[in-house]
Amino acid sequence: MEKELHFERAEFAQRLVAVKKEMSRRGLDVLLLSEVANQNYLTGYNAYSFYTPQMVMVALDREEPVWMGRFMDGISAKMTTWLSDDSIRPYPDIYVANPPLSAYEFMAGVVKELAGEKLRIGVEMGGFYYSAKAHADVAKALPQAEIVDADLLVNWIRMVMSPAEIAIMHQAGKIADAMVQRAVDVIAPGVRECDIAAAIYHQGIAGTPEFGGTYGTAPPNLCIGKRAIAPHACWTDEPLPASTTVNIELFGVRHRYQVNLSRTVSVGAPAPAYQKLADVIVESLNASLDVVKPGTTCEEVSAAFSKSLSKYGYEKEARVGYPLGIGFPPSLQMRTASLRPGDKTVLQAGMCFHLMCGLWLDDVGITITQPFAVTPGGHEPLTHIARKLFVK
Amino acid sequence: MEKELHFERAEFAQRLVAVKKEMSRRGLDVLLLSEVANQNYLTGYNAYSFYTPQMVMVALDREEPVWMGRFMDGISAKMTTWLSDDSIRPYPDIYVANPPLSAYEFMAGVVKELAGEKLRIGVEMGGFYYSAKAHADVAKALPQAEIVDADLLVNWIRMVMSPAEIAIMHQAGKIADAMVQRAVDVIAPGVRECDIAAAIYHQGIAGTPEFGGTYGTAPPNLCIGKRAIAPHACWTDEPLPASTTVNIELFGVRHRYQVNLSRTVSVGAPAPAYQKLADVIVESLNASLDVVKPGTTCEEVSAAFSKSLSKYGYEKEARVGYPLGIGFPPSLQMRTASLRPGDKTVLQAGMCFHLMCGLWLDDVGITITQPFAVTPGGHEPLTHIARKLFVK
Repeated sequence: MEKELHFERAEFAQRLVAVKKEMSRRGLDVLLLSEVANQNYLTGYNAYSFYTPQMVMVALDREEPVWMGRFMDGISAKMTTWLSDDSIRPYPDIYVANPPLSAYEFMAGVVKELAGEKLRIGVEMGGFYYSAKAHADVAKALPQAEIVDADLLVNWIRMVMSPAEIAIMHQAGKIADAMVQRAVDVIAPGVRECDIAAAIYHQGIAGTPEFGGTYGTAPPNLCIGKRAIAPHACWTDEPLPASTTVNIELFGVRHRYQVNLSRTVSVGAPAPAYQKLADVIVESLNASLDVVKPGTTCEEVSAAFSKSLSKYGYEKEARVGYPLGIGFPPSLQMRTASLRPGDKTVLQAGMCFHLMCGLWLDDVGITITQPFAVTPGGHEPLTHIARKLFVK
Repeated sequence: MEKELHFERAEFAQRLVAVKKEMSRRGLDVLLLSEVANQNYLTGYNAYSFYTPQMVMVALDREEPVWMGRFMDGISAKMTTWLSDDSIRPYPDIYVANPPLSAYEFMAGVVKELAGEKLRIGVEMGGFYYSAKAHADVAKALPQAEIVDADLLVNWIRMVMSPAEIAIMHQAGKIADAMVQRAVDVIAPGVRECDIAAAIYHQGIAGTPEFGGTYGTAPPNLCIGKRAIAPHACWTDEPLPASTTVNIELFGVRHRYQVNLSRTVSVGAPAPAYQKLADVIVESLNASLDVVKPGTTCEEVSAAFSKSLSKYGYEKEARVGYPLGIGFPPSLQMRTASLRPGDKTVLQAGMCFHLMCGLWLDDVGITITQPFAVTPGGHEPLTHIARKLFVK
């Protein structure tokens, strides 16, 4: 089976060293990863199979992590990970959706075989895909183990990306740019909302002529007219009226690295007050970017935005940004740092964020945003489409 | 706020009666639903917000269910559910990804306020989006409650669909048909895999000229050439060779009701043995459909398929089908009945299944499938595209 790796083996080895170092610090013998992005980060595994039980085990004294998942997905594990066959441990299909059998019992058996029983085991208590039942089954099958919460252990480590990862983020950013441009091209009075969404999807998956795209962690958000204030509502079949606003949030993805981007499109000439609001947001966005460099804290980035906004009498309560990186459905949410008051996380070169400076006032909203990477000297944008209110 | 309901209020009321009846039977005072499809079934709620904590509470002695979720999604709750404002209880944004705060503690407070504390509460232990930590937080915040597993309680009830639901399933089926046709149209030597996926997405979201589509529970599966045996691998940027096979599994969705459908497309003339295999599968598929009617068991449908296959010396080990209905990412998986040996679930009119008669032999596979609804007299297909091997 030919391996399809997007990183050098040395890079995977470095990631593993960093994780094991933190495991040692916390006194963990074994780490069981259910968060799919963390599985991908350490092994390269990439297939849409995580809706069935699937974990990656890192044992402190074992050279390779171990992928455990459904039998038919073992092929994807051989194709997409750097692991040797002995570290790929699929369970038979009889364990799929077939209570009282539990795939977690099978996986606990692999832990026993490869790492023993009297272990201090870290699990991701708050991650997607580690259900209450999964936890109960793991605990029952490993009665001699001490099981502790190691949620976010890997998330914090993978927040700081390597040059090879940042290069892929830039590709994802190019796809995001193409998606916004396609949306702007398609938006016009009389076009059905679903047809705008369809065009965005098409561009995101087709990518660019140089490289293809792939599915995002979520559908694009299209907040149109009265739905401007319902950020996660689905689009409808309705045709666009002659005059409205379309707030778009979309996701460019390359090899599971995701860049989020938002723009507002005004259908028909915008009211002067609305145009003015857009200008204020762009000015505040730029003011916020100006303070980004290694050593700045997340709350300082947020404060720079708020300070600029306040000059014009506006306030923003919600956080103004979140980290970007590897993502799988249902969400990119890394659950680590946020650009918001009180968050003292210190920026480091290699971190990426979506500066999400949307502003919602009563029943109108504008979202003009900027994903960026922190660099040694400051920051670089991951997308290049104009920071402005588009008008059609 | 104008309500956008796809069903009569009387239908929602009937669904609630059925759920409360089962709650009574099990001695439950309260049911906390974290499975998104179950939330949608009982309230109509539809927004892509379930990656943050979100539950629907059904209390035996309260007329309406209660939606609990993120503040900004409360608008979607008002728009898409039949609930009165008092039954929509959003939590402030400070609870989002901000430990040690827990939105589950907030939601437990709503339970206390509206239903009390000394309760027997059912939770969905094995559902997506009810993490180990969520369960721990709920239990901690409701120390006087007895918390028991009520996984699948609602899933079993919603397996039997109403005529209004079946009508939407037929619309979803029309979208699935259009998606397969679009894929067949686009597939040709030299076309990049990602461009085929992009076309399928485009059609699925655009839907038909009469009604739009929406996102599926998962990306389409495109198993091409050597990836025929890696069912959940992602597509690549590679162009199709002059001769290969493309196995497609895709998802037509209308108002969150999903119809799954698979076809195989041969690029270039298929080998006679491969064409013969396709004919055997279609014959076995038809034999299997012939036994579908109320009163037949799931294992009997599976046996009819196996019996027909065995005439030609083939065997199929995995299950040959699964239920269809309301779905949200990451999976349509209903985790109830399966069309497989040993499953004695009795078919009833209103149940829908995907008869998924894929056959994989060493390194080739063919998938020609049929989604269907059980009717009083037998069954009706939910899609109408030809049951055959397509050749380009």
